[in-house]
Formats: sequence, structure tokens, C-alpha cells
Amino acid sequence: MSSSELKNDRILRAFQRQPVDRTPVWMMRQAGRYLAEYREVRAQAGSFMGLCRSPELAARVTMQPLERYELDAAILFSDILTIPEAMGLGLNFVTGEGPVFEHRVKTAADIDRLPQPSAQKELRYVMDAVAACRKELNGQVPLIGFTGSPWTLATYMIEGGSSKTFAASKSLLFNEPEAAHRLMAKLADTVADYLNGQVEAGAQALMIFDTWGGALDPVRYREFSLAYMQRILEQLPREREGRRIPVTLFTKGGGQWLEDIADTGCDGVGLDWTTSLADARRRIGGRVALQGNLDPCMLHANPEVIRREVARCLEEFGHGPGHVFNLGHGIQPETPPENVDAMIRALHELSPAYHDATATSATS
Amino acid sequence: MSSSELKNDRILRAFQRQPVDRTPVWMMRQAGRYLAEYREVRAQAGSFMGLCRSPELAARVTMQPLERYELDAAILFSDILTIPEAMGLGLNFVTGEGPVFEHRVKTAADIDRLPQPSAQKELRYVMDAVAACRKELNGQVPLIGFTGSPWTLATYMIEGGSSKTFAASKSLLFNEPEAAHRLMAKLADTVADYLNGQVEAGAQALMIFDTWGGALDPVRYREFSLAYMQRILEQLPREREGRRIPVTLFTKGGGQWLEDIADTGCDGVGLDWTTSLADARRRIGGRVALQGNLDPCMLHANPEVIRREVARCLEEFGHGPGHVFNLGHGIQPETPPENVDAMIRALHELSPAYHDATATSATS
Repeated sequence: MSSSELKNDRILRAFQRQPVDRTPVWMMRQAGRYLAEYREVRAQAGSFMGLCRSPELAARVTMQPLERYELDAAILFSDILTIPEAMGLGLNFVTGEGPVFEHRVKTAADIDRLPQPSAQKELRYVMDAVAACRKELNGQVPLIGFTGSPWTLATYMIEGGSSKTFAASKSLLFNEPEAAHRLMAKLADTVADYLNGQVEAGAQALMIFDTWGGALDPVRYREFSLAYMQRILEQLPREREGRRIPVTLFTKGGGQWLEDIADTGCDGVGLDWTTSLADARRRIGGRVALQGNLDPCMLHANPEVIRREVARCLEEFGHGPGHVFNLGHGIQPETPPENVDAMIRALHELSPAYHDATATSATS
Repeated sequence: MSSSELKNDRILRAFQRQPVDRTPVWMMRQAGRYLAEYREVRAQAGSFMGLCRSPELAARVTMQPLERYELDAAILFSDILTIPEAMGLGLNFVTGEGPVFEHRVKTAADIDRLPQPSAQKELRYVMDAVAACRKELNGQVPLIGFTGSPWTLATYMIEGGSSKTFAASKSLLFNEPEAAHRLMAKLADTVADYLNGQVEAGAQALMIFDTWGGALDPVRYREFSLAYMQRILEQLPREREGRRIPVTLFTKGGGQWLEDIADTGCDGVGLDWTTSLADARRRIGGRVALQGNLDPCMLHANPEVIRREVARCLEEFGHGPGHVFNLGHGIQPETPPENVDAMIRALHELSPAYHDATATSATS
């Protein structure tokens, strides 16, 4: 099925700031632990990576949130650490600790020894999952493919897992900038191949998650994170089957650098909840679409509060196209699923007033 | 000794944006675990709170960084959690886990039951430590007193310790805003009494650490964190013995809200390393002094890199007064003490070029 046969292309239109009838919505980590049906498949898969590696199971959990909620996009179920894992670092998910790598990248020699896994070989299973998702979706909504940013991937590879301070990763940038650039370049080119593979396999929009970009100072952010997201962008197909493949960059904690992010030539900029949508629209809304930005903790509030906050987000962005509603970070495992429903119902009820009712949409 | 007899008042002048001969410097957590001599006294004290509770030992560790480095201020050795502890929540420091409270604030009734500990009674030991520090300092440099912000204290009281998401604390703000306001008001008034007590006991400058303000969305930040720092400011003596008592607000992650912070009427605004000093000066440098902002991870770099980054900070702020050099967050326990020396020597060597050589200073 070609993407032009999509039953609902609202989100692709919104990423191009074209008129829509209501604000489209998806959620970061929308397929995940907050859903009982996800936990069931996860248990069946045996391990988290086992779930990612099975195209059939990955497609099944990708579909789960769409069966519950009227969402405008699916996002491939996978993990940002597939690339470091395919580089042979030995990934384990330890309960309560998160991802842990057996091998850490410590020296310039380690960096130069790292292989570049291919989308068609070591990472083929991800492409197969993309294809399986597209098949399951059957044109219902677009499928979003994704990756971690080079800097974000590098932090896990250098720290060996999560970190509070990123002292080791930053030390590499400070003390061995040339080796750090070689690492980021290798990661950027691997990511570009990976995203190209996802598009070929059927992804209709792309996200680059720069989860830890906000831990950097502005100089290092531009030099080691943003520049390599730009390097990826330059290697991506921006159109396929006559349709734009919108690319969205999300630097958590990057609210001070929105202009720089928009300057990369991306289609969308993801916002966490610390940035006002009104402020962001004033600063970069003439150039890019904005995605966000309800605090995921808001889904612990009661439905009336959730509705009021959805209204506030819509009012902050204001009238017209270019807004893709989302949380400001991944949905939390403890989120009550019925609160997600309250959020999406509020959005569907309130957002048409901010759009032109005559807007064409593939859903009609 | 009156504060007018200070041998070095550079930092007080800088907080008032008055001419100085070089950029003054202190470091957040400058008395702490990165120093072997601190670890020795800490072991002797038996427990962290035991160290805080002994005026003699607290004064001794307060002095330690000044014996090693040519710093322009001392900061009282204490902890932001003295107030919640004095409210009876049962504070323990668990190795590897940080602070843990035995009792958590869960309901509106819990909030209304919380006592307001007094600077002259339950928190008298902190005032005694301030007085002991002043005595030890003997006019060498000013003594900074400090507190956590009401929101930051509230997160520990509600979560029972550190948190990644602040889901419980934010849920209170979202679902029970009136109870949350009562908690913040109670904390603000207790903090104001606490800081007044510190000034009476001899503190010559004050810091309010809003460590977790940056976790909030802009609406909640203004309503629940910033408004209560302002409430504290309005209750503080701004002058004593003919000398201004400068108050600095530091919201980590607050770079997007600098204008609002400066609007409170504080003297200084603390910056983490994600904000460019040039940008901050352009935005608020006409109204307040700026404090910061080297990434604490930079102290893991080699001395040449540290020197280059000190130069960059100085160049970013530019010429003239109103800059208090500091890290962008607390110094890390793993920091090599010799790297601190490299940072301070670079600052002393490079910063005079940014100031008027004829500036008067109590050090002459």
C-alpha cells in the first residue's frame, strides 16, 4: 500500500504545517508498560530485546495503543539501543537499573574498533518489524520510525548505562574531542543508514530522540549533538512515493536552543513541558511544526485537570496548523490508561475549534 | 566584627554590580566529599547530620576549601533538608540512595499537621554553626547562608527522597492546588525565618537553591516555585550594618525563565551550564548579577581544557562587573582537587583583564 492511500494523514499534514480538521496526537512510548496487554506480550517474549527482535510481537505491541485510543500515528516498537547492541557492546536490561552494557567504550582505540552495523544485515530485524507494522496498520495511520541521537547513544556506550552526570561521556568530549568526533560521525552514519532502511521498509515519518542533549552546555550541544543530527538529516530521503517524510528532532531540555534546532532543516521540533508552546511558536513556528508538550506526570492528575491542561496547550499554540500534540517525554509505566483516554477525548473535543473545519483530510 | 571590616568584599561588590579588580569565585558544595580532609571530619562526626549539628565541626569543614584555594566566599556547611528534618519527617542518609525520609507528606491533613520549626529553637544549631563559621573566618571573606526553595524541599518531603519524575509532588500541585499552596506558604515562611536567623547569626549573603524547579512546566514553576521564593525575598532583611545582604536565586534548569527570576527583586541569578552567560547578560544583566556557570564535569578535564573554558566563560560574560564565577551545579565528589586549583588559578590570571584595574577593593 502506498502512503498516499492512508486513511488518516492528519499527522503528516500537521508536520508540514498544512491545514487539518483537528490537532493530531500520538504519545512517546505509547506502546509500553502502562498497558496490561503490553505486559502480557512482554512476558511472552521472555526479554525486552526478544520482543524487539520478533517482528510479529513488535508489530502486535505497536498496534495495541491504537486499539484502545484514537491516535493519529503508530510508532514502531523498538529501542534506541538497538544500534549500540548491534555494535557488540552486550546489552542487558537489569530490573530497576535500566539498560546495562557489558562492554563500555573507553578509549579512542575502542571507538575506532567499533563496527558499523547495517540496516540490511545486523539490524535487519528492525526493518522486518517496520514492514510487519505497516502490514498490520493497513493504512489506518502513518507509521513513525525512530532512533536515538548520536550523542544520546554515545552516553550509554561510554557510561555503560544510564547516568546522572555523564561525567565519562563529557570527559571524552572535553579531553579527546577528535576521538569524540569520530565516534559521533560513525554513529551518525550508522543512524542515517538505519533510518533510510526504516523508510525503505515503510516508515512514513521519522523521530530522532536526543534524550540527553539537554545535559550539555550550548557549545558542546551544537558541536557534538546538533551537528550530528544535522549530518543524519542530510543523508535522509525527504520524500518517498510523492510524499514528504517529515523528520522531527527532540532534544529533551533543549528549550533554550530551539532556533538552532529549527535551523537544521528538520520538519518538526519536539518540545518537553518546560517550554511554552506560545513561546516556541513565536520563535520557530514559522519554519517548523511543533510537537508536544504535556508533562507526562499530568496523566496522574484527575480527568478534569487533564482536560483543562489540554485546553491550555491548545490555547498556547493557538489557531492554525503546525501542532502535533504529544507528551513532553515518554509516558510513564504507572500511568492509568483511562487518563490517556481522558486526554485524547479532550483533545478531540476541543481542538477542532483551533482549525479550519473545511480542511481536507484523508479521513473524510 | 562588622561586615564592613571584611578583608575581601569582592563578592559582595560583584553581587551589587559594583567595580571589582577581578571576578570573584566560590563553588557550590565547595566543602565536601572531593576533599580528603572533609572525608576525615565526616568520618569523625559519625553521620552526615551529626556533622551538620556540630557547630565546631561544621565550621571546620566550612573553612577547609579556603585553606586550599583562594576563594572569595565561604558557604555554611549544612544541608537543604534541615527544615524537613526539623519538621519531624525522620531524615536518614542511605549510602548510594541519598536522603530518605521515614515519613512522607501524603495528604492535605499531613500538610496542615506539619509544625513550623523556628530558627531560634529547633534550627538553633544551624545558627550556632553560622556564628562559629564567622568566628573562624575572622573577616577573611564573606559567609554565605543558604536554603532549599519551598518547591525543592516539598519534593523531598512528598517523594520521601530523590525522584526522577516527581510524579507524587506534581500530582499534589495538579490535583490539590490549594493544599499545595498551603504547603509552599508554610515552607516559605519557615525558610524566611531560617534565613533571617542566619543573617542575624552572621551570614553576609544568601542563596536559595531551587534544585528541582526546572522539572516543572512554566505555569507551575511560576505558581508553586518562583512565587514562594518571592514570598521569602519579601521577608528578608536586605541590609545589615549598612551593607547589602545580596540574595541569589538558583533554579537549575531555569534558563528559559531568567526574566521572571530577575523580576523577583533578587540581587543575583544563578545559572547552570546550559545557559550562555552572554545570552543571560543580554537578557537580565542590566538588573541582576549573574552567578555561574562552568559544567561541574569540566573539572574532570585536563588543566589546559579547564583554563580554556574559564577563558570562554569570562569572554561570554564580557567586560565589567556583575559576574560571580561558580560551577553550574555542585562540585562532584569524584573531582580531583588539583583541577579546582587549575580553575581558580586560570580565573585569577585571566579575569583582571575584564575589570577596571583601579577598582577599589577591601583586599588592598
